[in-house]
Amino acid sequence: MDYVYGPGRNHLFVPGPVNIPEPVIRAMNRNNEDYRSPAIPALTKTLLEDVKKIFKTTTGTPFLIPTTGTGAWESALTNTLSPGDRIVSFLIGQFSLLWIDQQQRLNFNVDVVESEWGQGANLEILAAKLSADSAHAIKAVCIVHNETATGVTNNLATVRKILDHYRHPALLLVDGVSSICALDFRMDEWGVDVALTGSQKALSMPTGMGIVCASPKALEASKTARSVRVFFDWNDYLKFYKMGTFWPYTPSIQLLYGLRAALDLLFEEVFKKCRLAVEAWGLKNCTQKAEWYSDTVTAVVVPPYIDSAEIVRRAWKRYNMSLGLGLNKVAGKVFRIGHLGNLNELQLLGCLAGVEMILKDVGYPVKLGSGVAAASAYLQNTIPLIPSRI
Amino acid sequence: MDYVYGPGRNHLFVPGPVNIPEPVIRAMNRNNEDYRSPAIPALTKTLLEDVKKIFKTTTGTPFLIPTTGTGAWESALTNTLSPGDRIVSFLIGQFSLLWIDQQQRLNFNVDVVESEWGQGANLEILAAKLSADSAHAIKAVCIVHNETATGVTNNLATVRKILDHYRHPALLLVDGVSSICALDFRMDEWGVDVALTGSQKALSMPTGMGIVCASPKALEASKTARSVRVFFDWNDYLKFYKMGTFWPYTPSIQLLYGLRAALDLLFEEVFKKCRLAVEAWGLKNCTQKAEWYSDTVTAVVVPPYIDSAEIVRRAWKRYNMSLGLGLNKVAGKVFRIGHLGNLNELQLLGCLAGVEMILKDVGYPVKLGSGVAAASAYLQNTIPLIPSRI
Amino acid sequence: MDYVYGPGRNHLFVPGPVNIPEPVIRAMNRNNEDYRSPAIPALTKTLLEDVKKIFKTTTGTPFLIPTTGTGAWESALTNTLSPGDRIVSFLIGQFSLLWIDQQQRLNFNVDVVESEWGQGANLEILAAKLSADSAHAIKAVCIVHNETATGVTNNLATVRKILDHYRHPALLLVDGVSSICALDFRMDEWGVDVALTGSQKALSMPTGMGIVCASPKALEASKTARSVRVFFDWNDYLKFYKMGTFWPYTPSIQLLYGLRAALDLLFEEVFKKCRLAVEAWGLKNCTQKAEWYSDTVTAVVVPPYIDSAEIVRRAWKRYNMSLGLGLNKVAGKVFRIGHLGNLNELQLLGCLAGVEMILKDVGYPVKLGSGVAAASAYLQNTIPLIPSRI
Amino acid sequence: MDYVYGPGRNHLFVPGPVNIPEPVIRAMNRNNEDYRSPAIPALTKTLLEDVKKIFKTTTGTPFLIPTTGTGAWESALTNTLSPGDRIVSFLIGQFSLLWIDQQQRLNFNVDVVESEWGQGANLEILAAKLSADSAHAIKAVCIVHNETATGVTNNLATVRKILDHYRHPALLLVDGVSSICALDFRMDEWGVDVALTGSQKALSMPTGMGIVCASPKALEASKTARSVRVFFDWNDYLKFYKMGTFWPYTPSIQLLYGLRAALDLLFEEVFKKCRLAVEAWGLKNCTQKAEWYSDTVTAVVVPPYIDSAEIVRRAWKRYNMSLGLGLNKVAGKVFRIGHLGNLNELQLLGCLAGVEMILKDVGYPVKLGSGVAAASAYLQNTIPLIPSRI
Repeated sequence: MDYVYGPGRNHLFVPGPVNIPEPVIRAMNRNNEDYRSPAIPALTKTLLEDVKKIFKTTTGTPFLIPTTGTGAWESALTNTLSPGDRIVSFLIGQFSLLWIDQQQRLNFNVDVVESEWGQGANLEILAAKLSADSAHAIKAVCIVHNETATGVTNNLATVRKILDHYRHPALLLVDGVSSICALDFRMDEWGVDVALTGSQKALSMPTGMGIVCASPKALEASKTARSVRVFFDWNDYLKFYKMGTFWPYTPSIQLLYGLRAALDLLFEEVFKKCRLAVEAWGLKNCTQKAEWYSDTVTAVVVPPYIDSAEIVRRAWKRYNMSLGLGLNKVAGKVFRIGHLGNLNELQLLGCLAGVEMILKDVGYPVKLGSGVAAASAYLQNTIPLIPSRI
Repeated sequence: MDYVYGPGRNHLFVPGPVNIPEPVIRAMNRNNEDYRSPAIPALTKTLLEDVKKIFKTTTGTPFLIPTTGTGAWESALTNTLSPGDRIVSFLIGQFSLLWIDQQQRLNFNVDVVESEWGQGANLEILAAKLSADSAHAIKAVCIVHNETATGVTNNLATVRKILDHYRHPALLLVDGVSSICALDFRMDEWGVDVALTGSQKALSMPTGMGIVCASPKALEASKTARSVRVFFDWNDYLKFYKMGTFWPYTPSIQLLYGLRAALDLLFEEVFKKCRLAVEAWGLKNCTQKAEWYSDTVTAVVVPPYIDSAEIVRRAWKRYNMSLGLGLNKVAGKVFRIGHLGNLNELQLLGCLAGVEMILKDVGYPVKLGSGVAAASAYLQNTIPLIPSRI
Repeated sequence: MDYVYGPGRNHLFVPGPVNIPEPVIRAMNRNNEDYRSPAIPALTKTLLEDVKKIFKTTTGTPFLIPTTGTGAWESALTNTLSPGDRIVSFLIGQFSLLWIDQQQRLNFNVDVVESEWGQGANLEILAAKLSADSAHAIKAVCIVHNETATGVTNNLATVRKILDHYRHPALLLVDGVSSICALDFRMDEWGVDVALTGSQKALSMPTGMGIVCASPKALEASKTARSVRVFFDWNDYLKFYKMGTFWPYTPSIQLLYGLRAALDLLFEEVFKKCRLAVEAWGLKNCTQKAEWYSDTVTAVVVPPYIDSAEIVRRAWKRYNMSLGLGLNKVAGKVFRIGHLGNLNELQLLGCLAGVEMILKDVGYPVKLGSGVAAASAYLQNTIPLIPSRI
Repeated sequence: MDYVYGPGRNHLFVPGPVNIPEPVIRAMNRNNEDYRSPAIPALTKTLLEDVKKIFKTTTGTPFLIPTTGTGAWESALTNTLSPGDRIVSFLIGQFSLLWIDQQQRLNFNVDVVESEWGQGANLEILAAKLSADSAHAIKAVCIVHNETATGVTNNLATVRKILDHYRHPALLLVDGVSSICALDFRMDEWGVDVALTGSQKALSMPTGMGIVCASPKALEASKTARSVRVFFDWNDYLKFYKMGTFWPYTPSIQLLYGLRAALDLLFEEVFKKCRLAVEAWGLKNCTQKAEWYSDTVTAVVVPPYIDSAEIVRRAWKRYNMSLGLGLNKVAGKVFRIGHLGNLNELQLLGCLAGVEMILKDVGYPVKLGSGVAAASAYLQNTIPLIPSRI
């Protein structure tokens, strides 16, 4: 039984899970092993050391948790905060909405700062709130670096500047699920206290590993945080780190070897602009200003007489291509082209060619080839030779 | 970098993670897929239906959670109980100890019933406690079906009988991590309210999927349970079950296909007795009475002048074999031979031959071949022809 | 050491070896097995039966030889002919040239009928030769069904008609290396006596299995053929066929399972026309008349001021794409787009988009998007929904 | 359809194809590639260089031919000899018998020197023949280094000494199919002119690559050898070697990467003696003198009242173990335990334990555990710590 077989490869252009590089698939093609043998701690040690590089931190402590991004969120919150703590949280799309829902259900006092979907976080309101909080009641600022639902990237350096300007001690908790490894991310420089991502995003692995990195200040906070936690408790990890066996419970052997291979492969991602294709088609990007453009996902707004869900359905049914749906407030109005992970130029151009056909299928008067041409023109001027083939 | 390569296959005889059948490895050798395409819900639907069979339930509701056994425990507890609830919990080895630790940290009022390690759960004390609890203050009975640390199997039918005898409404929560799929397990017949296992145990898959099954009574309890939970919340799953998309967050595509293959392969496990070898060596089983003998792990007690950790170290260093350490109270005193999962007779005999050499290495006067002979004699009389080869 | 790693998948658009479907890769991901166990003959039996279907024969006898297409050629010739035998052989491109070279070195008396490269076999000359050969000195007619070097397909039905018209008993030996499984092929209807292909062509497997199918008349001829042969001798196979063990020497276990999976997957290939793109670019197809157009490879003629080898080099170095070189007489003048095997529409469109960029790179004034648009327009009107997704 | 699935791994103890190391399986888990891209020649170059080391030659020229051992034989003979040439060839078991059959069918004048099966090559007769051949009519001496059918290893150093003693210029052609990579083999030191092996033997890869290595003298001979050959012609290879593209026809991409991984893994094989088990069982080795004992296969003679084929059948049907049959003259009288390739001590001991049970099944009064004990005792005193784990 293989539900997905069709001729050729599936064109996977959703914002996650993303295409896995073949060397990573090969590395995971293996039997289980005893995680208490000397091999797994030795392997884990190199992973914990190297994973810090993707966060750009030297002082952070990483945790490789057998969970998803949702679990990584919970790990970040419950280890650093206590029930009733006031936190400021930005709502700019579906994933920030889900995180805020979690924050509320974990009994924090959430101060929601909402922007129109398609805009970035409203940092002026943040400044106002911090300025007014001389008592330091605000314990944390929670922000999604790259909102996967709308394709908006927030400016974390500015968030840090505002916190510093008001000398405010609030923790900075960052969802980097669709940004880390794909966008510029600087944990130490930006003073991020907890950063997190998932294995199935820009690391290009299967789902199942939530990667959380805590600053010394966050670790300090974990000592007094009173949120109930066991599975996600950093202390259990730290205890086993000290012993050198590293794992409080069984890790996925396959994901450990996969992470080793993925880190070994990390490379400069170069797909800047399927946005040029969107323009050539005469359509609009959901992201409203260029400064918020995301490098990992493009959310395309369709004309009102077209249902974007129909586009996604057709992509699957007719062209064996997977596109992202519009979520919640923009459901039916946008579809999303994911372009993070293990992809290259011609795969992206094939994707754009497919989108053109679908647009025509659903009645939009696109000129076939127009978007491909715009993107080709850009790529042709910017992509370098593959270094190993020069 | 391959930390574990040595000539030949590693002899993996720990109680988990266990050997993965080659068809399951092949099924997981694949790229990611869009979990919102029609294929994954269609696949998930068959998995949820078929996974009920391994619990022997028709009325239960299963959850396939991206987590480990520890997370499955937390899912069972937080969805059915409220902080402060009184629960009776049996301590008979390392894994029941860890579960009790979790119960306490989740703020339940845990009534611990301890047995000597190597003995089963003291059900007389349970009877006494239930008899005395006419107010029904006890909300749940928590029991490990098969204690992986000592190789003891508890009798769940008797637990149910006692609960029924006193007409006590307490929920019956069962850790079946090293029993389900390997030992006889009957969720409906024994009136188990929550049963759970992990993918890397008798299902013979990689780690990363916690499988939890809830009875209608447990689902009912989840509506009023006040324990804080988000990642592990059954309601989020139930909401997506109703929509037919099944997943509140991203599952591991690979584990879904792996589970499909593993369920397709499920077969009668036949390794009853490496216990005969233990006797032939003149050693003792840690499990003190035959009625508690576990079919999935044998814990062997070594003479006082031998350190069992040295046996496990040598197995690894000299013979490329992985054995389980003695844990906590029996550390240094026992080593454990895991024999659940994808194994067959000759693999087990090779393992026993290896143990004999190690015993001699560390100074125990074993007669080489004696344990192998005892086990061979038993197997020879009991193993049938492989059905597909008759 | 991985010489080929680059971001994303390699775009493999050469006429062979072609892309392997993922289910076939998975089926071959396995250890060796004893080929004398009952399993391999049982598997082989189904393969021999099913492989006849790809030749469209019920009376033929197939041989799965551990070799390449070159070895399959040798098998066809040495089993049916004797040194000095006169054969008529058509020279229309690089691969027919190589086969003729082999025929000469095997000491046959080869009557070469040459066409201009880009044209089909000259069947008028065949008619003339058969008409003149009332003594039946011509023992075989050798023809390449689809010349991979120029993208020309010969009309085998006509060849048979001519042979029948003159009631000539010559054997009809056909190289179907790049046609069988991709183009219409009818061994029995067309009276083909030996047909052959290689696993790495339209069967979409790794290289290493030469598949040869012999008609009863060819088998009869093998009894008196005096060409020296051992490794390629059909009699050794027939002897083992009779015993039911099938293999005179060790087969590749992996290729047997791969063939099983490949046969299970066989589907209607739908890529008719990247020829439309060639026209939209203002370039010419090397194949000179539409009746000879090949459905498996398109050979594109470049303007005289461009070196087609530079196009292939750039495709590799800059775009991670593999295109076929022009061979021998058309070296430097044509490049080839292979489109047989496991490919789908969007992969092909991505390929065309890449070719457009390269053409521009090397100074040809192509309109970016033009070829993609032409092909998209065609595909959009012709590709059906994927049946399993309707 | 999976004909071989049974619980646990198949115990593959035949003399070929042998167990493939997991890193080699992983390395071959890949799509096809363009063999004319720069990557494959670069890879091939390292393979040709490194493969010389397994022959212990610096002056030899290796060929990696897409064929089996039978094809490798044919390559060795047809490239160096002409029809009618007189050769001396030793018949000591089934594989030397098959090679002699090939030599005769290729029209050489074969001077067969037969020994009783179970004995080594009769070198006294060789000396006599060379001594008598002052005219140097003998063009080649053909010898199987390790006769896989009887487990006899011939002494090649002595063969060379005899040739040198008589200053005889005959070529020395050696079948090293089951010896190279497993036994001591010294092409240059022993003056071997053509040595050959197959990928599925001690290299522990899938079947499909015949590896042939030619001395300068053999290459010289190939210039005048008049045997007809095309697929196996070394000259076609040499032509492409000179061009730096290496392949006259398509190689298996997967086997090239597999060979790279296999060469990277080559290690000291340590299984000397399951012969001790044979003695402990009170049985006899087919090999009649210790000096001929093979390190790669043990042929066990069963008592006259037992049919050895029944042992092999039972091994498969009841214990999922693959043993080698007795061939031809020793059919029904011996069974063979293959122990070359990727195996380790405990796998071998599991195998011996299985053989003991089968022996008892078929009525031989073996003491269970006796052979295992004998082998364990030996291994325990000789196997070192795994270097990477010290």
